[in-house]
Amino acid sequence: MLNVAVVGASGYTGVELLRLLHCHPEVAVTCITSEQSAGRPVADVFPTLRGRYAQVLENLEPVRVAEKADLIFTALPHKAAMEVVPTFLKLGRRVIDLSADYRFNDAAVYEQWYEPHMNPENLKEAVYGLPEVRRVKIGDAQLVGNPGCYPTSVILGLMPLLKKGLIDTTTIIADSKSGVSGAGRGAKVENLYCEVNDGFKAYGVGGVHRHIPEIEQELSFLAGERITITFTPHLVPMDRGILSTIYARLSGSATTADLAKIYVDFYDGEPFVRVLSAGSVPSTSHVRGSNFCDIGIVVDCRTGRVVVVSAIDNLVKGAAGQAVQNMNIMYGFPEALGLEGLPLFP
Amino acid sequence: MLNVAVVGASGYTGVELLRLLHCHPEVAVTCITSEQSAGRPVADVFPTLRGRYAQVLENLEPVRVAEKADLIFTALPHKAAMEVVPTFLKLGRRVIDLSADYRFNDAAVYEQWYEPHMNPENLKEAVYGLPEVRRVKIGDAQLVGNPGCYPTSVILGLMPLLKKGLIDTTTIIADSKSGVSGAGRGAKVENLYCEVNDGFKAYGVGGVHRHIPEIEQELSFLAGERITITFTPHLVPMDRGILSTIYARLSGSATTADLAKIYVDFYDGEPFVRVLSAGSVPSTSHVRGSNFCDIGIVVDCRTGRVVVVSAIDNLVKGAAGQAVQNMNIMYGFPEALGLEGLPLFP
Amino acid sequence: MLNVAVVGASGYTGVELLRLLHCHPEVAVTCITSEQSAGRPVADVFPTLRGRYAQVLENLEPVRVAEKADLIFTALPHKAAMEVVPTFLKLGRRVIDLSADYRFNDAAVYEQWYEPHMNPENLKEAVYGLPEVRRVKIGDAQLVGNPGCYPTSVILGLMPLLKKGLIDTTTIIADSKSGVSGAGRGAKVENLYCEVNDGFKAYGVGGVHRHIPEIEQELSFLAGERITITFTPHLVPMDRGILSTIYARLSGSATTADLAKIYVDFYDGEPFVRVLSAGSVPSTSHVRGSNFCDIGIVVDCRTGRVVVVSAIDNLVKGAAGQAVQNMNIMYGFPEALGLEGLPLFP
Amino acid sequence: MLNVAVVGASGYTGVELLRLLHCHPEVAVTCITSEQSAGRPVADVFPTLRGRYAQVLENLEPVRVAEKADLIFTALPHKAAMEVVPTFLKLGRRVIDLSADYRFNDAAVYEQWYEPHMNPENLKEAVYGLPEVRRVKIGDAQLVGNPGCYPTSVILGLMPLLKKGLIDTTTIIADSKSGVSGAGRGAKVENLYCEVNDGFKAYGVGGVHRHIPEIEQELSFLAGERITITFTPHLVPMDRGILSTIYARLSGSATTADLAKIYVDFYDGEPFVRVLSAGSVPSTSHVRGSNFCDIGIVVDCRTGRVVVVSAIDNLVKGAAGQAVQNMNIMYGFPEALGLEGLPLFP
Repeated sequence: MLNVAVVGASGYTGVELLRLLHCHPEVAVTCITSEQSAGRPVADVFPTLRGRYAQVLENLEPVRVAEKADLIFTALPHKAAMEVVPTFLKLGRRVIDLSADYRFNDAAVYEQWYEPHMNPENLKEAVYGLPEVRRVKIGDAQLVGNPGCYPTSVILGLMPLLKKGLIDTTTIIADSKSGVSGAGRGAKVENLYCEVNDGFKAYGVGGVHRHIPEIEQELSFLAGERITITFTPHLVPMDRGILSTIYARLSGSATTADLAKIYVDFYDGEPFVRVLSAGSVPSTSHVRGSNFCDIGIVVDCRTGRVVVVSAIDNLVKGAAGQAVQNMNIMYGFPEALGLEGLPLFP
Repeated sequence: MLNVAVVGASGYTGVELLRLLHCHPEVAVTCITSEQSAGRPVADVFPTLRGRYAQVLENLEPVRVAEKADLIFTALPHKAAMEVVPTFLKLGRRVIDLSADYRFNDAAVYEQWYEPHMNPENLKEAVYGLPEVRRVKIGDAQLVGNPGCYPTSVILGLMPLLKKGLIDTTTIIADSKSGVSGAGRGAKVENLYCEVNDGFKAYGVGGVHRHIPEIEQELSFLAGERITITFTPHLVPMDRGILSTIYARLSGSATTADLAKIYVDFYDGEPFVRVLSAGSVPSTSHVRGSNFCDIGIVVDCRTGRVVVVSAIDNLVKGAAGQAVQNMNIMYGFPEALGLEGLPLFP
Repeated sequence: MLNVAVVGASGYTGVELLRLLHCHPEVAVTCITSEQSAGRPVADVFPTLRGRYAQVLENLEPVRVAEKADLIFTALPHKAAMEVVPTFLKLGRRVIDLSADYRFNDAAVYEQWYEPHMNPENLKEAVYGLPEVRRVKIGDAQLVGNPGCYPTSVILGLMPLLKKGLIDTTTIIADSKSGVSGAGRGAKVENLYCEVNDGFKAYGVGGVHRHIPEIEQELSFLAGERITITFTPHLVPMDRGILSTIYARLSGSATTADLAKIYVDFYDGEPFVRVLSAGSVPSTSHVRGSNFCDIGIVVDCRTGRVVVVSAIDNLVKGAAGQAVQNMNIMYGFPEALGLEGLPLFP
Repeated sequence: MLNVAVVGASGYTGVELLRLLHCHPEVAVTCITSEQSAGRPVADVFPTLRGRYAQVLENLEPVRVAEKADLIFTALPHKAAMEVVPTFLKLGRRVIDLSADYRFNDAAVYEQWYEPHMNPENLKEAVYGLPEVRRVKIGDAQLVGNPGCYPTSVILGLMPLLKKGLIDTTTIIADSKSGVSGAGRGAKVENLYCEVNDGFKAYGVGGVHRHIPEIEQELSFLAGERITITFTPHLVPMDRGILSTIYARLSGSATTADLAKIYVDFYDGEPFVRVLSAGSVPSTSHVRGSNFCDIGIVVDCRTGRVVVVSAIDNLVKGAAGQAVQNMNIMYGFPEALGLEGLPLFP
């Protein structure tokens, strides 16, 4: 039995981790922390856990956490993560960090988009935890930087095209749409029900969203050349889900059927990527609550562009589910263990 | 391994059964039928199942179904169920029927609210499948009439009060609210997104909803006297969930704390009933996708009434989950097997 | 042209007042205040007003407000209202107060449910602004206490039954459901989109909601006897709307058709009460954005109870629209002036 | 007083026309037709109209309609419109057609995307009813082809860039998102509440949506050259609203501030186009129920692309409101008459 801690459990990612870990047969959750709610039973904060989680939320004291757990999931805001992760590592624990703090190869990029990095030495050792890209390295990692939700959807959507060199990489545009849980559980007017319901908007327009450098890092790695993209996030009145509609000009000519076949072959054997049949495109409804990434691909013959549509649940494949998948890889469990749940529909 | 069939799988209850059975370690789904979509892969009809269910939907030919399965879930409309259930039973199969056809002790009641009953002999043998009320009988049953969604929420909400004789049984009013999946997957204008979204309405007002006789049958059984109630269903703009707010006048005096204690004791050991602490009331959000029934109880001292609030997921504890729970009881599996999934929140 | 001020305009009631007043041909909005956002253009806070309201939000300085306006709408929290209303009145201004501060005949009742009343002398003169009950007094009032949203729906639903003495007044139960805008625009976790969406819950159960004494005051006035009710509010995942389902035992025997006729006659000539044909019940969808109160009435013959269902838009007939209707009465404008807009559907 | 008919009033566009026309002081609605519901009071089909519209829905007999009305709004499906419009015109009536039948300059384009055109002679005379593009011609038109919802949002979003020659016209991509009312009121499974709620999907991907030729016709007209675009529509779980995110590469260099100024100047004096301040982007929430088109514009300096975001209410500026605006122009009424209503928020 693997003892794990969930650090920073009072947000939506935290409770999603607890939901998934409850059904994992090889894991015991031995420590749950929350700065805001320390001292309260976790089931008071999240009544969904009532009757199944008896634990009380603890303060985040890194040494005590490390005493209780072999693996630590840090579901903290960026910066807060790198304040405690070094201690966990020093004490020989493995860490899956769900913040942005350990996602970048280059501290300078982090510093340009976020703030000064406090722990560049561990940053160098961290592995970007997208299993479809770096499964082997994840297996050996002591520290995994769990990918952002938007990046997961965009990178998986484009990977086969980039690896096969099928598109003009200067023409990539990703138009992404997210459910509201991506904005977190903080008490902000802009995320109130009445502000969001029955409306739709863009935000972070014009190349300013912090997921851009993360996406570009991985796309560049896959393509073997420096890639710059246009990325626009939007807010959808729904709890969960990200759908990315990705555009690029084809280098040569290819039909929808050609590309669908390339995608099917490329992702053959992947437990969580489902390539749709030629001409079909996904819906976030069909991945809700699951670790799937559904991908559809269509060629627009009139303009020579390819349109890739990818859908994930931002809290699962975009966060907590991917973290569990990474844990499975790190500990040699079957990769889908604890992640067998099918999407909830309707 | 138990071979089971799901008959009538193109509705929301059908797909929910398939979702739950996929995670059940003792069950193989060997046959799935749908009149409307026979010949199509079930994953085409419900893309959530993609990559996990390879089966093709079959026509409903009762003998062939019985050849493939030991236990048959009939998720058909009422009347359609009693057209095929007798064949399954004659061939020695066990049946859990999710329609209304086998829920009544008395064919006359069925006939008053529905239509002529075609199979009164099996009706007599059928067991009303609410485990908290009739666990032992369910274990031995060949045919289980799986309860309706509204009745499950109202009966579980009132059971302790009735068994203990704490209320004036002539004063019961159940004001219930359901998500839209309760209305089924038929193409009707009234269930279109734009007709339902951002609105709230009552329907079936004035003692005409067909779940009334079912509720009254069970409440009368529990109380040992004939009970008549006022019941009003409402439609909530949400996919899943039923919340029933139930009113009755207390016979004697009791505090909220007294009653909460009685409920906790009464439901002690039940795997799926969660009694909230005194003064708390439940939300459908906290049972979504799970087999829980959450119950809160409050005394209104100003008027001498008790207010019970109960919440379930109509597709799980109100239909498919309860059916799986009944199956577990019938076959001696641990009662919660395959039903461990925690509610999805948000 | 009547000069009006809207005091406390950064909430949902405030912006709704501005929306309605914009289409009122006899009114000029000459002053808009907001403590939180003073100094910002009102159209920055509410982009719906862009291009139509050029005003900048002002601090609430009562004397300056009174200099600019003949009539002042106070859309402040309770207590904050009674801190400024006396000044407005002293300076000869008329006031429509949308808080609870001037709704009660008896300061003792206010103090029991709220807090010490700072202005009992004006409370005595204030008129409860439900036009269907007190139209004539409203016309002469200097100070109107604009009714709460739940009370409006319950009182209008019961008024004919009480005036005609048709029910046992000890058996009244009002089960009410509200959209989320009723909870205001404060940044609270519980009102975040993800906390509310796709869920349904009760709150304030057991006779504790502050609208109870207001409802009971008016029902008692209408019935000519002291009435105590059970009232349960619920939260619906929708922006706007209140639907109240109201139960009482009939004193004598009456059919649905009898009562529908009584209601039609009773509300004949009322510009905003629409009585539905016998057997029909309303939906909040059909009053959204309008000042209508739709009422349906059904007798449950099996139990001798009557079920009244009433629907309003909580921000219009339940707040800002009713305030404009009161203004029209106070100034002799046609009662529906500026309120002609039909409900927005879908 | 202008007598108008609404032909095909049982859809969402029809009821929206009736809502808007009710508040128009120069118009009397003298005839309302519906094939499906002829003989029923219109207020039975749309309870929002209760108490304000007493009319009974009529069969569509063109000559009788023409006898009753000077101006006829045809809110019919395409093809059904061109079956009756010629009669109206022959009888000297003016027509605003809300279908696609009279939107194209070239019958061949219509025939490529729709079906054989039955009335090419009137097609030639019809004016594309986007006031911001062709106000003068609309004034004189006997027949107006009212624009589609997606085209309105895309054309208004791009017009200043095209007229000023600021973008590389081979690089235009419009990623559009629509509320569900755009799919009409037909009883289809795919538009049921539970199929749409809490999900997001693309559809018509790859250059196949019928609004493409309409958009391209107008963009080409504005640019003075043949333009081909990539267009992807999406379905948002909300009733109303379209938001289009439009991408193009800038020909030269321009800042966000430069372009915002160009847009403000370009649309100066337009009653319904609101250009947001530099860096702001719109939300459909802020135009709901109104005839506004809100536009924001941002330059992505990293990639040299401009991103335009435009928002409308698809049933108002995208259909019925634009039709009323066209009527106002045709009859010399103030252009905003009957369209003064501010957006409903929340």
